[in-house]
Amino acid sequence: MAVYTHLSSEQLAELIAEYDVGTLTSAKGIAEGISNSNWLIGTTGKDGSGARFILTMYERRIEKSDLPFFLGLLDHLASKGCPVPATIHDRTGAAFREIDGKAVALIEYLPGVSVDHPTTAQARSVGRALARNHLAVADFPHSRQNALSLLGWAKALKSCGDDALATIDPSLPDIAFEELSTLATTWPDSLPGGVVHCDLFPDNVLMLGDEVSGLIDFYFAATDFFAYDLAVTHAAWSFERGGHAFREDIGWALLEGYEEVRPLNPAEQEAMPWLARGACMRFIASRAEDWLDTPEKAQVTRKDPMDFVRRLKLYAENGANIFARS
Amino acid sequence: MAVYTHLSSEQLAELIAEYDVGTLTSAKGIAEGISNSNWLIGTTGKDGSGARFILTMYERRIEKSDLPFFLGLLDHLASKGCPVPATIHDRTGAAFREIDGKAVALIEYLPGVSVDHPTTAQARSVGRALARNHLAVADFPHSRQNALSLLGWAKALKSCGDDALATIDPSLPDIAFEELSTLATTWPDSLPGGVVHCDLFPDNVLMLGDEVSGLIDFYFAATDFFAYDLAVTHAAWSFERGGHAFREDIGWALLEGYEEVRPLNPAEQEAMPWLARGACMRFIASRAEDWLDTPEKAQVTRKDPMDFVRRLKLYAENGANIFARS
Repeated sequence: MAVYTHLSSEQLAELIAEYDVGTLTSAKGIAEGISNSNWLIGTTGKDGSGARFILTMYERRIEKSDLPFFLGLLDHLASKGCPVPATIHDRTGAAFREIDGKAVALIEYLPGVSVDHPTTAQARSVGRALARNHLAVADFPHSRQNALSLLGWAKALKSCGDDALATIDPSLPDIAFEELSTLATTWPDSLPGGVVHCDLFPDNVLMLGDEVSGLIDFYFAATDFFAYDLAVTHAAWSFERGGHAFREDIGWALLEGYEEVRPLNPAEQEAMPWLARGACMRFIASRAEDWLDTPEKAQVTRKDPMDFVRRLKLYAENGANIFARS
Repeated sequence: MAVYTHLSSEQLAELIAEYDVGTLTSAKGIAEGISNSNWLIGTTGKDGSGARFILTMYERRIEKSDLPFFLGLLDHLASKGCPVPATIHDRTGAAFREIDGKAVALIEYLPGVSVDHPTTAQARSVGRALARNHLAVADFPHSRQNALSLLGWAKALKSCGDDALATIDPSLPDIAFEELSTLATTWPDSLPGGVVHCDLFPDNVLMLGDEVSGLIDFYFAATDFFAYDLAVTHAAWSFERGGHAFREDIGWALLEGYEEVRPLNPAEQEAMPWLARGACMRFIASRAEDWLDTPEKAQVTRKDPMDFVRRLKLYAENGANIFARS
């Protein structure tokens, strides 16, 4: 949680002058983002009545060559009426610029707050918004391989190694590698899909009351099954207290909201328990890697991979019921 | 640079409901502040047209018992038309509230950006704004002892000790303690004064173009000489590149702007070189303490005390000219 690069107000004013958004009136670094630095920018606006934007500087992990994909996706979804921040293009039409060799993008500001303890009405709204995204990408003409799919999880966990994984929890290596073998045989070959968010945790959703006002942080977006994206969202939203408490009501509301807009077909319904187990593996793998990469005393909070081991167990033991039709 | 406490959107919405400012529509943690956590808060506003505020949570260093003083000072200065953020009082009239035992205050949002490389027009505006503050506190009915005065600097440097100071720079102990003895005999006994900011660095000043739009972060405010506050501001603004480059033009513009509003009397004029040397000692002392308290590898940037040793040398060698009348 930090701003990694100091941009002077002079640099910011020069940058903002490259866009048709009025002149800079304020800039506050935002204490969010791990791979990016972000500023909340105020300008006089085109008409002098004031406007706000998010300025993102891509610091690491995100390849410059991927930016046309990510920023194009935002524009595509926004143009379809999805609550996704559009990219502001500069006076030459460019979606991103560079400052000292780092890419920066000016992005629409959306109101709303991220909730910690969603209500069922909020979960239903998230389901609907996710399904609308899935319908809206039908004609998005780009794709991006999902590096964090079954093969990617296996690769990440193998590179950690059994011994290191066991330092996180003695049970972790066995659980993880057994689950990988299981999923290797049960993972669906083909399901409806397209470019999906893949990381729709509560902190990537902005809410105004019970309604979704923004879906943000699409930097894990990749081509995958729609139902896998729904499973990731289910795993991300339906648990509290570090995966110890399953909130069945939230899970149902999310699925119901989703199916109001885009009903799952029978193959997707059947696959949901496996996709949810895969979603857990995705976060177990990335969190284990981050955990082992982060010194114990670093000021960065490490996210516990075991949180998703607990979620995985629930889906493994009870997945059929969790996703069964009433 | 961080937000030290996680406040859920639910907690924030409850807090905002205690004020007559509309309902919460956004909240972004700001990557500023060492002793405080700060959020930029958006609400629907009283009339539905939207409003912005800064929410500050006092994490350390600032005593709860000092808050009525600090927040009362903001209100006093704002009511006099100084560009200072007023405190928003809750529905019961309270200037601050508590969340989990920590004090929080909702504060007016002011537009503007902090400049890294001021122009002379900007420095002149800062001088004027500072002088207006000095005039405006004449009838502020509270005072607060300045813990960071001559005695405070001596105490801080002695508690560091010669050996530790020498690890920062071998020359530091001699320079610091010789200067303390000099100032003990030359420091003025009495000059016009009142409650002053004492820390008006460029990052505590918001600018729109050439004009000051906000003076912020009054948490070092204390009763002291007006001319000392001007000297602190002179030392804070008139140097670049870590104290290596003196910007005479900025220094002059600042003084001229100040005297447009509040001319210095002869005793103040004469004292300026000593007050500027004292201002340097104040930051040498606090930075040396922080430097020795902060592990070398900590992710917090340590501010170099030697930066202000360089400024001190310039004032010692050339103070009479720097502050002489043309």
